[in-house]
Amino acid sequence: MQILVVGSVALDTVRTPFGEAREVLGGSATYFASSASYFAPVSVVAVVGEDFPLEELEFLKRRDVDLAGIDRRPGRTFRWRGEYGFDLNEARTLETQLNVFAEFHPRLPESYREHDVVFLGNIDPDLQREVLTQVRAPQLVAADTMNFWIQGKPESLRQTLKHVQILIINDAEARMLAQEPNLVRAAKTILRWGPRSLVIKRGEHGALSFADGGWFAAPALPLEQVYDPTGAGDAFAGGFLGFLASTRNFDEANLRRAVIMGSVMASFAVEAFSLDRLRHLSYSEIEDRYRQFKHLAHFEDL
Amino acid sequence: MQILVVGSVALDTVRTPFGEAREVLGGSATYFASSASYFAPVSVVAVVGEDFPLEELEFLKRRDVDLAGIDRRPGRTFRWRGEYGFDLNEARTLETQLNVFAEFHPRLPESYREHDVVFLGNIDPDLQREVLTQVRAPQLVAADTMNFWIQGKPESLRQTLKHVQILIINDAEARMLAQEPNLVRAAKTILRWGPRSLVIKRGEHGALSFADGGWFAAPALPLEQVYDPTGAGDAFAGGFLGFLASTRNFDEANLRRAVIMGSVMASFAVEAFSLDRLRHLSYSEIEDRYRQFKHLAHFEDL
Repeated sequence: MQILVVGSVALDTVRTPFGEAREVLGGSATYFASSASYFAPVSVVAVVGEDFPLEELEFLKRRDVDLAGIDRRPGRTFRWRGEYGFDLNEARTLETQLNVFAEFHPRLPESYREHDVVFLGNIDPDLQREVLTQVRAPQLVAADTMNFWIQGKPESLRQTLKHVQILIINDAEARMLAQEPNLVRAAKTILRWGPRSLVIKRGEHGALSFADGGWFAAPALPLEQVYDPTGAGDAFAGGFLGFLASTRNFDEANLRRAVIMGSVMASFAVEAFSLDRLRHLSYSEIEDRYRQFKHLAHFEDL
Repeated sequence: MQILVVGSVALDTVRTPFGEAREVLGGSATYFASSASYFAPVSVVAVVGEDFPLEELEFLKRRDVDLAGIDRRPGRTFRWRGEYGFDLNEARTLETQLNVFAEFHPRLPESYREHDVVFLGNIDPDLQREVLTQVRAPQLVAADTMNFWIQGKPESLRQTLKHVQILIINDAEARMLAQEPNLVRAAKTILRWGPRSLVIKRGEHGALSFADGGWFAAPALPLEQVYDPTGAGDAFAGGFLGFLASTRNFDEANLRRAVIMGSVMASFAVEAFSLDRLRHLSYSEIEDRYRQFKHLAHFEDL
């Protein structure tokens, strides 16, 4: 199955206790595509400015990523600058320059319109629906969002959720969206609004998924070297949806495997600055890490 | 195997967003014994004041808990008053009255000295060692501690750790003890100081165990009703050690089951104020919840 992703392609400047990276590849669509492309072909819809070094995305083309939907516009590329303290769980945003992203309206190349799996990255929920109107009959629509849209465009976001089967957000976002501090009750509320499954990312604490079939808790791999958490959530979404697209199976057991595969890809993403660790993985490295998760979480019956 | 626990027996006043409980049963030894006694006989060493309603511990005697080691002294019982906000992860201590606990020196009744499993609750590390000198040949020694001792008596704590096989603390304590923000590196440091296994409690995020044999991540059960997190850590330790004592098996696979059993008992503890939910559980309720954890954490190989 072919995956369509809409999101940001950005230049990030990131400081962590372990170093600094300036004007490096970033953005939700970039991380998502880098991760998902290990599993299935990915087509990207995004916008960049004249200053964007498109040649740096060449490595993605070798993994069957279609960049025809990246619109290059007059002006500067979207930039994000942030830093992390020692706990690495939360970024402090120091600066956001929307630049060409401010006027972004996703236009899908004709060849994208038959795609089966759609990931609506964290952008204005109005734009998320603009994408959906251009896709003919997707079999699976997943989406991300953030506090900015939850607070700023709640009605539009609720409209988008009606068309989303799987919502992938973090725990603070889930609580804010449902206006409910208890995560189980928050999940139940959100599942009444459209999604049939909710995946909650919790950083170093793993991920939870909620669906009618029950709840699933995935651990995060305890890592000795975490350099840069930027993009981990999009790498997660890429592994999750890439795996689902490659296996063409959306049943509950396979959704659980997909959550683990998302966690696998997120665990790679944080091991280096930018998306460097996602450039050249082998599939056997990915399988090995899946087995590490299996060993990590395994326990016997009584 | 018989378990010996030393710790506090207290009267707690707790406020959470869901209500308030005044002067109710609390203390590390109380929660531990309430939990462990579902699995193995427990002997308690603690001190209370003249005002302590010892009859309220009668329910423990019916589950083979020996209270002969609870010393009743002139003066008032140890009291703790605290509150929790909506996130329930961290207590705000409003008042601590040590009272008779300030002069506590554990004296083991003769019948306690042959016990096989020892849990050193969160007390002065000097006192933890005083207990160990009074036990003849324990097969398993586990301990808890807290920031107050980590910062206030680091040398004494390091001495105690030499005699401890399993240290059971939370993630902030592990980081503080090892002076290392990365949890994996913190665990490796602590394992060089004596314990052969480190169990890290993470509240609603579950538990991690580190040992030479590898790492294990246990989820926490997502709960719709959490009333009072007080004592969850001691209920965890009680389920963990109670299960190990009842199965007489300390191998890695059984340690993993024990971590889950600890999580099971903690999940009950938080469902009511004080230790009310730990008063009258049936073993089939405990087994059912273990199976819920199994279902929660299960995923298939690729």
